[in-house]
Amino acid sequence: MDQAKIYGVIMAGGSGTRFWPLSRKARPKQFLPLATRRTMLEETLARLAKLSKVSDCFVVCGALHEKPVKKLLSKLPRQNVLVEPEARNTAPAIALATAHVAARDPQGIVAVLPSDQHVSDVPGFERAVQLAADVARQGYIVTLGIKPTRPETGYGYIRVGEPLPAGGRKVAAFVEKPNLETAQQYLVSGEYLWNAGIFVFKAEVMLQAFAAHMGELSMALGEIRAAVGTKKAAAVLKRAWKKMPSQSIDYGVAEKAQNIAVLPGDFGWSDVGSFAALPEVRAKDSNGNVVEGPGLVIDSQGCVVVAGSKLLAVVGMKDVVAVDAGDAILVLPREKSQDVRKVVDALKADKKLARYL
Amino acid sequence: MDQAKIYGVIMAGGSGTRFWPLSRKARPKQFLPLATRRTMLEETLARLAKLSKVSDCFVVCGALHEKPVKKLLSKLPRQNVLVEPEARNTAPAIALATAHVAARDPQGIVAVLPSDQHVSDVPGFERAVQLAADVARQGYIVTLGIKPTRPETGYGYIRVGEPLPAGGRKVAAFVEKPNLETAQQYLVSGEYLWNAGIFVFKAEVMLQAFAAHMGELSMALGEIRAAVGTKKAAAVLKRAWKKMPSQSIDYGVAEKAQNIAVLPGDFGWSDVGSFAALPEVRAKDSNGNVVEGPGLVIDSQGCVVVAGSKLLAVVGMKDVVAVDAGDAILVLPREKSQDVRKVVDALKADKKLARYL
Repeated sequence: MDQAKIYGVIMAGGSGTRFWPLSRKARPKQFLPLATRRTMLEETLARLAKLSKVSDCFVVCGALHEKPVKKLLSKLPRQNVLVEPEARNTAPAIALATAHVAARDPQGIVAVLPSDQHVSDVPGFERAVQLAADVARQGYIVTLGIKPTRPETGYGYIRVGEPLPAGGRKVAAFVEKPNLETAQQYLVSGEYLWNAGIFVFKAEVMLQAFAAHMGELSMALGEIRAAVGTKKAAAVLKRAWKKMPSQSIDYGVAEKAQNIAVLPGDFGWSDVGSFAALPEVRAKDSNGNVVEGPGLVIDSQGCVVVAGSKLLAVVGMKDVVAVDAGDAILVLPREKSQDVRKVVDALKADKKLARYL
Repeated sequence: MDQAKIYGVIMAGGSGTRFWPLSRKARPKQFLPLATRRTMLEETLARLAKLSKVSDCFVVCGALHEKPVKKLLSKLPRQNVLVEPEARNTAPAIALATAHVAARDPQGIVAVLPSDQHVSDVPGFERAVQLAADVARQGYIVTLGIKPTRPETGYGYIRVGEPLPAGGRKVAAFVEKPNLETAQQYLVSGEYLWNAGIFVFKAEVMLQAFAAHMGELSMALGEIRAAVGTKKAAAVLKRAWKKMPSQSIDYGVAEKAQNIAVLPGDFGWSDVGSFAALPEVRAKDSNGNVVEGPGLVIDSQGCVVVAGSKLLAVVGMKDVVAVDAGDAILVLPREKSQDVRKVVDALKADKKLARYL
């Protein structure tokens, strides 16, 4: 077995609004210190730094976030921040990063991680990626599936197939977000893993997969690859990017390729999908409240209280989210945390409120 | 029937904390625009101005609030703001104001109003006070009792007795705050009125009542009266005030005097006792929410949302109070509005938090 290097790729193109008012257009989830005192982006790079040199790590992000990424990840070489001219879903973002790795090392192993997930068992995570890298070295595109701990309806699932001689398992199917009943069946069956968007593959293997399954993308990528490291790189990227289809890596490659493998991962993973999930990853008081900043929580249970510049007093509430951040405050039931979206929609619909986005 | 003038006396000594964080030590309830765009204190003076000249109105307040009162009530003569050296409950406050009225006009009719109540039917209020003044001119100390509209357990009640030849009714008894069952009986019986702390009396009649029922207070008051209008008034007040018993007018005079009368009042009265009461006196949206300032209320019913310097988004909540004011935010269930007290107690108990009081 050769010992090709691991290159870390952090997908930081997210512009999610599920943490409004903490998250804003200019500061989406990956820039928030949601699980620890460091931002999720910093934590993700720190996690990768055990597997590869920081100079072998890349971040893919949108133009709006280039500066904050460079500021936050001061040890990352400037040229390793890859800026998407426009948001185009995960396949083009992974293609861009893979092109940069391939320019340095076509045999290099690429480990793609979303920038906004939390891992509590970092050594366990490292072992899982190393195992995935071993399988990837044999020509597989490996995804790490997460062992479900609840009947979650907010994630896609992966049905695991037969064991592979190379290690890991075949992927029997990628399945869409299920309803609750189906999710409960998935949980009980033991045959399903959460699709966490974590991929490990050899750079040239992914380039071959793009060529085989995403011809249009592959053509555009060819132009970009030819210009990597040259003076016209930026202009070529901008032009070629317009031809990039907006497609997910799951749909564009993973569901089509034959050389897909899945490894079960169990390393305290959480995507911290909404305020409701903060108690999963944060310290709680004896009444199950998560309290950050100058919060004063009295006679309350199961609340998520994120105080900001003001004293935030919460009295006699149960399972409520109260967040003061910047120029806005949010109050909603924990079980309706997804409805933050409705606020964001209302802000988008009213020009006078757009400054709160 | 003589037509003695009416002198308005506004009791503005309250330091209530039931509207924290809107109300603070330096800005209690009477300084808040709770029911209208004007503060409750301004509204109270405006109500009196239909009954007496502003130059015949007095405000009794604590030293901490002298400046804000004078600033807010710019048309009130400066010397009509009577400052209590220390808070001493209602009997000394009424005694002080009565002494000042008596110095001008011993036959004058004094109408004492708390500074922090709302009246929606101002003409009805004026008629009630004029009726009370007619009875007072015949030597009675008259209180306006409010016809109950719900089994309120937060107020004292007045049981009405027989009709008096002078008009109005005898007071059968002043009764303490009842429990819910008793309050329901009171409501059904039709024999009970809410004690609103509104009194109308001839100045010299009240001075006689103090002499008869509150000897200690009457002695101290004698010193103060003798000095009213002289250069040593302030020094005498300060010294004599120390001898003033801290007692309510109800306990000290009203429950003991024989010449007490009660008149039922029905003029859209509300004491706006807590955030829970704001929907009684404020416009509501179609879902029963009271929204003030930059509030964004979605999928919510029966909420009281008072926004301040920040956008306050409330989503999917029912019967909740959310208030952003100054450097603090409060979230609590409407039915537990009285528990604001617990926040204030916590602030008092922790020196680091005292600045939020």
